[in-house]
Amino acid sequence: MATYIENYHDWLRDAHAMEKQAESMLEKMAERLEHYPELRARLLQHLEETRHQQRLLEDVIERNGISHSTLKDAMSKLIAFGQAMGGMMTPDEVVKGAIAGYVFEHFEVACYTSLITAAEQAGDHAGAEVFRTILKEEQAMADWARDHLPQVTQQFLQRSAAPDTEAKK
Amino acid sequence: MATYIENYHDWLRDAHAMEKQAESMLEKMAERLEHYPELRARLLQHLEETRHQQRLLEDVIERNGISHSTLKDAMSKLIAFGQAMGGMMTPDEVVKGAIAGYVFEHFEVACYTSLITAAEQAGDHAGAEVFRTILKEEQAMADWARDHLPQVTQQFLQRSAAPDTEAKK
Repeated sequence: MATYIENYHDWLRDAHAMEKQAESMLEKMAERLEHYPELRARLLQHLEETRHQQRLLEDVIERNGISHSTLKDAMSKLIAFGQAMGGMMTPDEVVKGAIAGYVFEHFEVACYTSLITAAEQAGDHAGAEVFRTILKEEQAMADWARDHLPQVTQQFLQRSAAPDTEAKK
Repeated sequence: MATYIENYHDWLRDAHAMEKQAESMLEKMAERLEHYPELRARLLQHLEETRHQQRLLEDVIERNGISHSTLKDAMSKLIAFGQAMGGMMTPDEVVKGAIAGYVFEHFEVACYTSLITAAEQAGDHAGAEVFRTILKEEQAMADWARDHLPQVTQQFLQRSAAPDTEAKK
């Protein structure tokens, strides 16, 4: 048994861990990419958005009186997910990286969709408004990734089939 | 360096492993659910679709002359991802399960999007047609999961706040 507030606060902690993981994934992916400038530029743009989202989220967390020390517990669960995603996707390869990025954006879309309901139920309407704003940015990044995936795939396949051409990053 | 065909065949193996993982996730989720009949019914419907997709995929794999023994190698990579997704999402809880399901559907959406491009580049237009059909089913399942996530979240929160009521499954 848990109150609306208890579940909401748990999920706020999860969302914070998720945005930390997003920052780390985006940093690594953008850093590695050499031959896919358009993808890299969009990832760097979303990295800035992600850092801003963290600050928005921290404001909501502070307003809800959640202490910083309890934020760390949520991290450990998510790190396993992020590592598995990275490992499974062999992150040295641009297509799998682009797929991993797209999937992680949809993970964020789903978490904020639930968080909006939880915030409304807990009476934090200002928080729900913040999450709606963030959700739009996650959805836009996910849509961009989907729309550009055929192009990234095609570029990878062409580079991969050409002699003496680095295709993976 | 790899030819169009080599990359295409690698990704066909990955897709097969993915559908096996999807089947296993859907089976477990549907089996556990007790108090969310609408979600359970949709998962069971998609389980049937998933089994049919496996058969379609196996036809494409056979037409491409890929042996069954090499299909097993691709499995190991994906199992780690599926396990991490399950572990991270604490699958005994319906909201995290619904999020995990939604995320996995988008993983499939992205993989088939790339696979369509790879099939076309490799000259397997009949294969690309099969993947377009499957992609539509994955997208429909993902859309359903997103549209019903607020409702599942609300039901969970209400059951969770009520005394003597099982909320998690």
